[in-house]
Amino acid sequence: MQSIIQALTWREATKKFNTEKKLTEEQLDTLLEAARLSPSSFGLQPWNLIVVSDPEVRTKLREVSWNQPQITEASRLFVFAAQMPTPELVDAFVANISATRGTPLESLAGLSQMIKGSLEGKSETERLEWAKKQAYLALGVTLTSAAVLGIDACPMEGFDPAKYDEILGLTERGLHTTVIMAVGFRIAAEAAIASQKVRVPRENLVIEI
Amino acid sequence: MQSIIQALTWREATKKFNTEKKLTEEQLDTLLEAARLSPSSFGLQPWNLIVVSDPEVRTKLREVSWNQPQITEASRLFVFAAQMPTPELVDAFVANISATRGTPLESLAGLSQMIKGSLEGKSETERLEWAKKQAYLALGVTLTSAAVLGIDACPMEGFDPAKYDEILGLTERGLHTTVIMAVGFRIAAEAAIASQKVRVPRENLVIEI
Repeated sequence: MQSIIQALTWREATKKFNTEKKLTEEQLDTLLEAARLSPSSFGLQPWNLIVVSDPEVRTKLREVSWNQPQITEASRLFVFAAQMPTPELVDAFVANISATRGTPLESLAGLSQMIKGSLEGKSETERLEWAKKQAYLALGVTLTSAAVLGIDACPMEGFDPAKYDEILGLTERGLHTTVIMAVGFRIAAEAAIASQKVRVPRENLVIEI
Repeated sequence: MQSIIQALTWREATKKFNTEKKLTEEQLDTLLEAARLSPSSFGLQPWNLIVVSDPEVRTKLREVSWNQPQITEASRLFVFAAQMPTPELVDAFVANISATRGTPLESLAGLSQMIKGSLEGKSETERLEWAKKQAYLALGVTLTSAAVLGIDACPMEGFDPAKYDEILGLTERGLHTTVIMAVGFRIAAEAAIASQKVRVPRENLVIEI
């Protein structure tokens, strides 16, 4: 019962990564699988995860991220990018249900219509904001998984999303950089002097009805 | 390494809860602590978690949630409600840092100004959307924690947020219902016939650069 609390207490928004220590292939694979298993509204998964390893690309990204060292010093940079939920995305989703479960496509027509109708009820801005929220949900699943695995991470909002889209070539893919997470291992010496975690007291956060 | 993947594979958006089986106090406490430990941008935690147990209130909520049975049948209903990030919230946050770490308040003036400046750069709509994203991040942390603990959950968007705010008295607290999660235990017989999880294949979700 307490191991999840220990993991969440251990985790920190890692500022100084050990540049010598890289994720193993198995660790990277596990994190990507955790991200993939993240739930989303309708199950639509309206986002992509860009795993940036290339040092030159990361140098460019750091320049549009307030020069934060995590961008280049972590083992990997994860970029969660929301995808505008189009009717085509819904079609692909429904086709995937049909293929995975062996359900005839015709019997999924009602589901497809329901999802499309829900999306049509939103403005374009609202649709993209909705997709971004699903990306934040996936971020929460992925960073909790990292903590359980003893992998350090730093979720970050301090960057220029439009420049990220440009540098990573996301615009032509219909993707919108939403939130990023540097992944790797903290420098132990730095960890020892890390500041105490600050959280609002339970009674200010939780309302019981 | 594989236990987190097992937990995330085991979890499902539980539709049929066992109405006889309730969370223990320790389980509830652990989930609330996991939520409280969730990271947020700047650490501001601009949301509250409403734990709804009252059967009458839940009956009213079900009526504005497409009559979905999880609302009343789960052991508890968690309501994540975004809080408009005001200068007062920033002041309370900075005071909490000062109290937790013993840092003089004066030396945190720069941080306070930086956060307030960042929030002032957003419209009111953008500020609230930003807070809602932090609530989705907390949802991701909480539902992953539930999965690790073997506790079932159903994250849900299908409800009328304005009616929730009214029924739960959130408007006068400056809170905005964002996303909800029914929490409890699935009916095992239903679980046995649960459909296979559908997720986009890795190669369609992950882009490597």
